[in-house]
Amino acid sequence: MITSTGNKKVKEIIQLQKKASLRKARGVYVTEGRNMFSEAEPARIEQVYVSERFLQSFANRRLLADKLGMVYREGEDLPALLNRCSIGEAVSDSVMAAMSDTMTPQGVLCVMRQPQYSLEDMLKGPAPRLVFLEDLRDPGNLGTIMRTAEGAGMAGILLSRGCVDMYNPKTIRSTMGSLYRVPFLYLDDPKETLRKLKERNLPVYGAALDQSVSYETLSYRNGCVFLIGNEARGLSKELLEMADCGVRIPMEGKVESLNAAVAAAVLMYESYRQIVSEN
Amino acid sequence: MITSTGNKKVKEIIQLQKKASLRKARGVYVTEGRNMFSEAEPARIEQVYVSERFLQSFANRRLLADKLGMVYREGEDLPALLNRCSIGEAVSDSVMAAMSDTMTPQGVLCVMRQPQYSLEDMLKGPAPRLVFLEDLRDPGNLGTIMRTAEGAGMAGILLSRGCVDMYNPKTIRSTMGSLYRVPFLYLDDPKETLRKLKERNLPVYGAALDQSVSYETLSYRNGCVFLIGNEARGLSKELLEMADCGVRIPMEGKVESLNAAVAAAVLMYESYRQIVSEN
Repeated sequence: MITSTGNKKVKEIIQLQKKASLRKARGVYVTEGRNMFSEAEPARIEQVYVSERFLQSFANRRLLADKLGMVYREGEDLPALLNRCSIGEAVSDSVMAAMSDTMTPQGVLCVMRQPQYSLEDMLKGPAPRLVFLEDLRDPGNLGTIMRTAEGAGMAGILLSRGCVDMYNPKTIRSTMGSLYRVPFLYLDDPKETLRKLKERNLPVYGAALDQSVSYETLSYRNGCVFLIGNEARGLSKELLEMADCGVRIPMEGKVESLNAAVAAAVLMYESYRQIVSEN
Repeated sequence: MITSTGNKKVKEIIQLQKKASLRKARGVYVTEGRNMFSEAEPARIEQVYVSERFLQSFANRRLLADKLGMVYREGEDLPALLNRCSIGEAVSDSVMAAMSDTMTPQGVLCVMRQPQYSLEDMLKGPAPRLVFLEDLRDPGNLGTIMRTAEGAGMAGILLSRGCVDMYNPKTIRSTMGSLYRVPFLYLDDPKETLRKLKERNLPVYGAALDQSVSYETLSYRNGCVFLIGNEARGLSKELLEMADCGVRIPMEGKVESLNAAVAAAVLMYESYRQIVSEN
């Protein structure tokens, strides 16, 4: 069992939690908590760290053994068993607290291998609906958009390089597990990708405040791409000009704009509502 | 100019930022930032604190003078003028940093008198639409719901006593100014209030995951009350049973639930969409 925060592996986890560049270079990311562990695809788990306290629960020990493909019977010395298994590692509660990004760690933390998605994957189904985020900066907003995107049946999320990292610990927490299931892709050349989407006859809608077309007047049944801009600045003129149509979400009162995750949700759920209502 | 964080007024602001009970006892709350200041109703401002740096800008000095009803000409010693005005006070940048709830204070902070709203106020208009929040705990979610509620033209927000304080600094920031404009009411007896709303023939819809009625199949044109539950537990059985109808938001994939602010947004904007589409 690891009991020192000076341990090399522990130090690396702490760095992986902080640095997007290190996550990218290593091709991994860190997830925390029992739900994220229980939903993790075993083939993608590079390493699992569990705390002493986590191992006290029989249900937790069973989950751990199942995930790691180990035969385990009650009463066995699980830390010793873990020692023989190359991807599991027990740590003291205080070491877990140091590795964790949260104030109240749940006692299980995984290093996961990053998946690689492609635009083609996202466009496989009929009438795909996509979200395209430009320079979104708030980790909570990004995670919430991914969670909502899965709920609304979106085919994937495209992101400009100026967006916050999808593997930021706060983003991961806000996705509530959708991170494992919604394809996403950071784009080196957003305009080139938009051109490709337009060639596929997917209508591109740029969300902006001063547009004359209101979102609820359009049909999204043949698929769509929603462009959502930065929290403070909105969409860049460049991207908005590439949209087939600018759309606005009507607002009462003196509201200047909606929260970016809320605006994305209103658009995604209207597109989903149209599909649900059609059937 | 106040230059010491030991100053009595400064100490009180720091306590007001932290303690909901003190805000309630004093009947005031604290807002920060230039936008919140410029949108503040002058009659409700009890005290304004401005930092040295804030006063360096001529536009800021003009805004301050306008709000406080002072005649001000460029070149005048504004801190001296403020000294003669009972509700304005200049503070050093370091004192402002201590008073502020944010990492990068904008240099202006107001003590505002709390307004008192009534249920009757919210029910004045035709076909009022309300949100009813039970034990919502996240300040950011609450503020975002208020911001979205204004945008969707909701008549007001009702809250159980178990909800986070609307005057929590994080909540206020997330409202982006809607705090000044959307009526809200904490309820001592939520069930009694629900009975009153039902007597007024307002249909009450309880958002829950396992309901058979999907939100988009209902008409909200005669007004409505949306019940939204706690982030982790959802609506209590007691409140859900009082609803005329439980409604679910359909979800694809393996999403277990939507973020509370997103769920509220989807419902509020569907009710607004129906009204906008009718005209």
